[in-house]
Amino acid sequence: MRMGMIGLGRMGANMVRRLCKGGHEIVLFNRTAATSEALAKETGAIATTTLPDFIGRLQSPRIVWLMIPAAATDETIDRLVPLLSPGDILVDGGNSFYHDDIRRARALAEKKIHYVDVGTSGGVWGLERGYCQMIGGETEIVQHMDPIFRTLAPGRAAAPPTPERAGRTKKSTAEDGYLHCGPAGAGHFVKMVHNGIEYGLMAAYAEGFNILKNAGIGKASHTVDAETAPLRHPEHFVYDMPLDDIAELWRRGSVVASWLLDLSASELARDPSLAAFKGRVSDSGEGRWTVAAAIEEGVPAPVLATALFARFTSQGHADFGDKILSAMRHAFGGHLEKTP
Amino acid sequence: MRMGMIGLGRMGANMVRRLCKGGHEIVLFNRTAATSEALAKETGAIATTTLPDFIGRLQSPRIVWLMIPAAATDETIDRLVPLLSPGDILVDGGNSFYHDDIRRARALAEKKIHYVDVGTSGGVWGLERGYCQMIGGETEIVQHMDPIFRTLAPGRAAAPPTPERAGRTKKSTAEDGYLHCGPAGAGHFVKMVHNGIEYGLMAAYAEGFNILKNAGIGKASHTVDAETAPLRHPEHFVYDMPLDDIAELWRRGSVVASWLLDLSASELARDPSLAAFKGRVSDSGEGRWTVAAAIEEGVPAPVLATALFARFTSQGHADFGDKILSAMRHAFGGHLEKTP
Amino acid sequence: MRMGMIGLGRMGANMVRRLCKGGHEIVLFNRTAATSEALAKETGAIATTTLPDFIGRLQSPRIVWLMIPAAATDETIDRLVPLLSPGDILVDGGNSFYHDDIRRARALAEKKIHYVDVGTSGGVWGLERGYCQMIGGETEIVQHMDPIFRTLAPGRAAAPPTPERAGRTKKSTAEDGYLHCGPAGAGHFVKMVHNGIEYGLMAAYAEGFNILKNAGIGKASHTVDAETAPLRHPEHFVYDMPLDDIAELWRRGSVVASWLLDLSASELARDPSLAAFKGRVSDSGEGRWTVAAAIEEGVPAPVLATALFARFTSQGHADFGDKILSAMRHAFGGHLEKTP
Amino acid sequence: MRMGMIGLGRMGANMVRRLCKGGHEIVLFNRTAATSEALAKETGAIATTTLPDFIGRLQSPRIVWLMIPAAATDETIDRLVPLLSPGDILVDGGNSFYHDDIRRARALAEKKIHYVDVGTSGGVWGLERGYCQMIGGETEIVQHMDPIFRTLAPGRAAAPPTPERAGRTKKSTAEDGYLHCGPAGAGHFVKMVHNGIEYGLMAAYAEGFNILKNAGIGKASHTVDAETAPLRHPEHFVYDMPLDDIAELWRRGSVVASWLLDLSASELARDPSLAAFKGRVSDSGEGRWTVAAAIEEGVPAPVLATALFARFTSQGHADFGDKILSAMRHAFGGHLEKTP
Repeated sequence: MRMGMIGLGRMGANMVRRLCKGGHEIVLFNRTAATSEALAKETGAIATTTLPDFIGRLQSPRIVWLMIPAAATDETIDRLVPLLSPGDILVDGGNSFYHDDIRRARALAEKKIHYVDVGTSGGVWGLERGYCQMIGGETEIVQHMDPIFRTLAPGRAAAPPTPERAGRTKKSTAEDGYLHCGPAGAGHFVKMVHNGIEYGLMAAYAEGFNILKNAGIGKASHTVDAETAPLRHPEHFVYDMPLDDIAELWRRGSVVASWLLDLSASELARDPSLAAFKGRVSDSGEGRWTVAAAIEEGVPAPVLATALFARFTSQGHADFGDKILSAMRHAFGGHLEKTP
Repeated sequence: MRMGMIGLGRMGANMVRRLCKGGHEIVLFNRTAATSEALAKETGAIATTTLPDFIGRLQSPRIVWLMIPAAATDETIDRLVPLLSPGDILVDGGNSFYHDDIRRARALAEKKIHYVDVGTSGGVWGLERGYCQMIGGETEIVQHMDPIFRTLAPGRAAAPPTPERAGRTKKSTAEDGYLHCGPAGAGHFVKMVHNGIEYGLMAAYAEGFNILKNAGIGKASHTVDAETAPLRHPEHFVYDMPLDDIAELWRRGSVVASWLLDLSASELARDPSLAAFKGRVSDSGEGRWTVAAAIEEGVPAPVLATALFARFTSQGHADFGDKILSAMRHAFGGHLEKTP
Repeated sequence: MRMGMIGLGRMGANMVRRLCKGGHEIVLFNRTAATSEALAKETGAIATTTLPDFIGRLQSPRIVWLMIPAAATDETIDRLVPLLSPGDILVDGGNSFYHDDIRRARALAEKKIHYVDVGTSGGVWGLERGYCQMIGGETEIVQHMDPIFRTLAPGRAAAPPTPERAGRTKKSTAEDGYLHCGPAGAGHFVKMVHNGIEYGLMAAYAEGFNILKNAGIGKASHTVDAETAPLRHPEHFVYDMPLDDIAELWRRGSVVASWLLDLSASELARDPSLAAFKGRVSDSGEGRWTVAAAIEEGVPAPVLATALFARFTSQGHADFGDKILSAMRHAFGGHLEKTP
Repeated sequence: MRMGMIGLGRMGANMVRRLCKGGHEIVLFNRTAATSEALAKETGAIATTTLPDFIGRLQSPRIVWLMIPAAATDETIDRLVPLLSPGDILVDGGNSFYHDDIRRARALAEKKIHYVDVGTSGGVWGLERGYCQMIGGETEIVQHMDPIFRTLAPGRAAAPPTPERAGRTKKSTAEDGYLHCGPAGAGHFVKMVHNGIEYGLMAAYAEGFNILKNAGIGKASHTVDAETAPLRHPEHFVYDMPLDDIAELWRRGSVVASWLLDLSASELARDPSLAAFKGRVSDSGEGRWTVAAAIEEGVPAPVLATALFARFTSQGHADFGDKILSAMRHAFGGHLEKTP
């Protein structure tokens, strides 16, 4: 299938590689033309240097896939729209907020341009493992693009079949690693929740490993003062837990086996003390939006919210609140802060 | 290797099956003798009907593996000790609290009996997948028992190798799915934290799916009264999310792929509405102990605690607290409770 | 001062009473005219039956205070604007979301109409105790209305002075119980956060009383099964705590004394079992918006969020998530739900 | 009433002052005798320099009140017991864990010595405001000591009466600010929960003020990169909130008025930036025990737990967990940590 790709960062370029390998003809456009040319040389894709040229190389109905930062999406769409014709298809494969998808789809529909939102998971591993794709948009348009999605997806063999799905008459592409989730915005909505879950899963492992890391605190001598809660039973905390081996261990046969655990095992194998990291944990939108959506729905999401807030705290954003606490303690008990 | 197994419930019986298949000679004892006999017939293991007979069939140093409810462990040990000799090995493979392991190991050491604690994960799937084993005890004793652990374990092939462990000179059984984690109690400590993490992971998925489940609330008409927070943008919640397909989708290429997700996909494939369940979620000790251990260590575990408390709430144990809230609202605002 | 009041529900009517008692001339308008007439008869205020009549009774610059449900505010403003003149002042004293204040202030400014947002706390007690008022808007306009705010406010005597404020040269009305917090929206922003805090405070008491309520569970006999975590030390939970007396006790000299505790003591005095309440706890917007604002700011608010989510759960909105948990437990462990 | 007081730190000394002023004869003992002498000179109490002398000055049944660090209590009791006679009364007014009370009461009962546990709240303010006392022990013994408790307590006038208690036939000392809560341990149990609630209340205010503090972030220019979630609506965050005035404001007529708010207003009046504090917030036992008790009871306490964990985090104890998160993000997305 012929398709245009705008945005050749790590994600976009890898998608082009996977698509070309899958036999598709990909037309490239990138802010810096050298990137397009290098990638075209590598993959057999077609490099272009201007948007009109880029559009000109596509056939009706044109498919243009945007793989650019969310902040640049609206501006790029504004530049593209005058070059597009009724029936053309715009795909946002970036990390847009699903509200924006709903707004864009409505605006583009007035010009008879179709809009498809694709949330993709897989990160830097997607080239090799394939991209898990969560898709929102009109049914026929999504079906029309099926060959693209199928090539990008991990494919059926990426996981053992779910036995309970065996007898299904209604086929679903879910087992191939891509899915039409609903109308405009549904793709990024599902991706948003996916990332919200990801925050919660990560926090669960992080807290658990932290408890294991501190399982030997009974061996240290402890200050006895009014500002330090004493350890009643130091004899219960005498362990030097081999975190790297425990992460590896749990990958086999345990209930907590997961891809995130695989990655943790990799990082802990490299350095069980994780000395290269400072513990300032960024968050990037979807986690926030997930909790906000839960609140709007009136649905409890305390674990996802707590995981999100722990990241904010790691960024130093609890500091003033903590000062309030110290100030109150000073006020009612004359407590001075303990210096570490 | 010859070993005795006491307790032939689902877990114990399956372990015997796996051990016999692996060439070990297992002597059986169970409260109801018929169970031992049936299992002996099936597996070639040796059934016994009295504890003295059971002990008599084992060779020095005897290995006795207990696979019984935690509440019955101390009493069974008390009955066994007079029958054992110095050098013999008692293994607790159940769900003991690790404090009990520390206490027992100390008491048994006075009689020169060795104590080994083994936390096992794998549930009803262990027979087929193997048991992930987290082991605490003396190094030589654990090494002596290596053939048993190896047979029970899932084995190296159960997961792809972690590339970062490739060059290791120090070998570890972690890659086979069992691990000596430290002295007495270390096995159940690691298992405890494993289950604590499990609670957090499960809650993350549960909250996420709940958000997806409610993504269509904008389509319902909403009561406008002072007791109901209005939905500002119903147009943002218009989705009928196919939960079964989304769970299946995420199994391939996504960051949240895990064994727990595989199981969720199975259950949702069977019935996306999960009508067979009421949502009263039990908790069984380890989740509680994990949070308590975090508190004693002074280590934050808000996600694991929140997940645990959500289970308590599902059991109805927030009810009086909720009445307090309603009573306060009544007192300051004259608010009456809304009837659903 | 002459001022018009639209909306004579419980809050609006009580404000009129307090204002009339304070010597102000209040012009009334209400959807049902009978309410205006009754209140006029009681208070000496001026009843009107049409909006033009209502507006006609006010002097330039007119002050119109809206005390109506947030959902009806925009529509009412639309009906008022054609009747108002440049320089007139519209006050929203209801529970508007502060985003709406910002929008309205901007739109009304084009017509040279001033907009003031006033968040009020005090509930059904305001008539007697006075209304704590958090005010947003232009400085001169807020100052112009000072006599109104002062009359509504609780006044300086409502709390002992804060000694640390003694030497202040810059005077503040904060000590009188009303405050100009900033430009449009600042009033409702502060009120929003106030309510967010309120949710957290209430939850802290509710959880604490629930722990006290259950301090005697060691005396009950407990089921021993795999689905129920056993109580290790029943002898630690043998108390029948007199909740009504404890709430009363804490009102004097303790660190947790507060108005919310006073109210709890009242409700528990009436019935320590709170049998009149079911524990379905409504939430009404501000708590949600507070957490959403925290998320947008990137500021952690785990306690406020957790308190909010506990209300959602009390409304039954965790149910599907809980079913997911039970389904997973069934899948990996064969666990069936325990029936209570 | 004659009573002995051991431990003349800030709390103990102030209690002696209040008791002497109330007409009681207090015999003093302290590790450093000079403290006793100075206090005796100031208050008219009786200084002693040895425990036998101290005990000798008391009349049967002797009452000995311990006001010493929890860690020193058992040792002091061991030294006292040989000097005491059947019928004597030992009072622990410190911050003991209630499990210790239960154990001590049982052990002392064998020697016919009575044990009373008194949790006290009031901190450095107790001398002036009186001490809120939560009492555990045998009914007759507690009644015998009533004059002591009454003198220490804040007294009925410390808070307005609760109208709903008006018609009560059963009198309670709760309205005087002290209460016999139940058998041994009940006093410290209630004090424990009191402090757990205190943590939750404090966190609610701290989070709220932090949100207000950051209400102007829309005015700062923000980095746009993949590691920073963008602020979608900077125009919604343009406020410079006067935190000191807002805290003062809420003291009058608002729902969140409380003693902790009074203290916050004091501290913020002194310096709204709280520059003297670093935000390292200690925790001192009761908060931990409250959450642990909730877990044992199977009662949800997510707000109290979250508040506790936020303190642990402020002490730097989330650090390794945060490194795990950064390591995972690096592994799946190639994300490097952002340097502030």
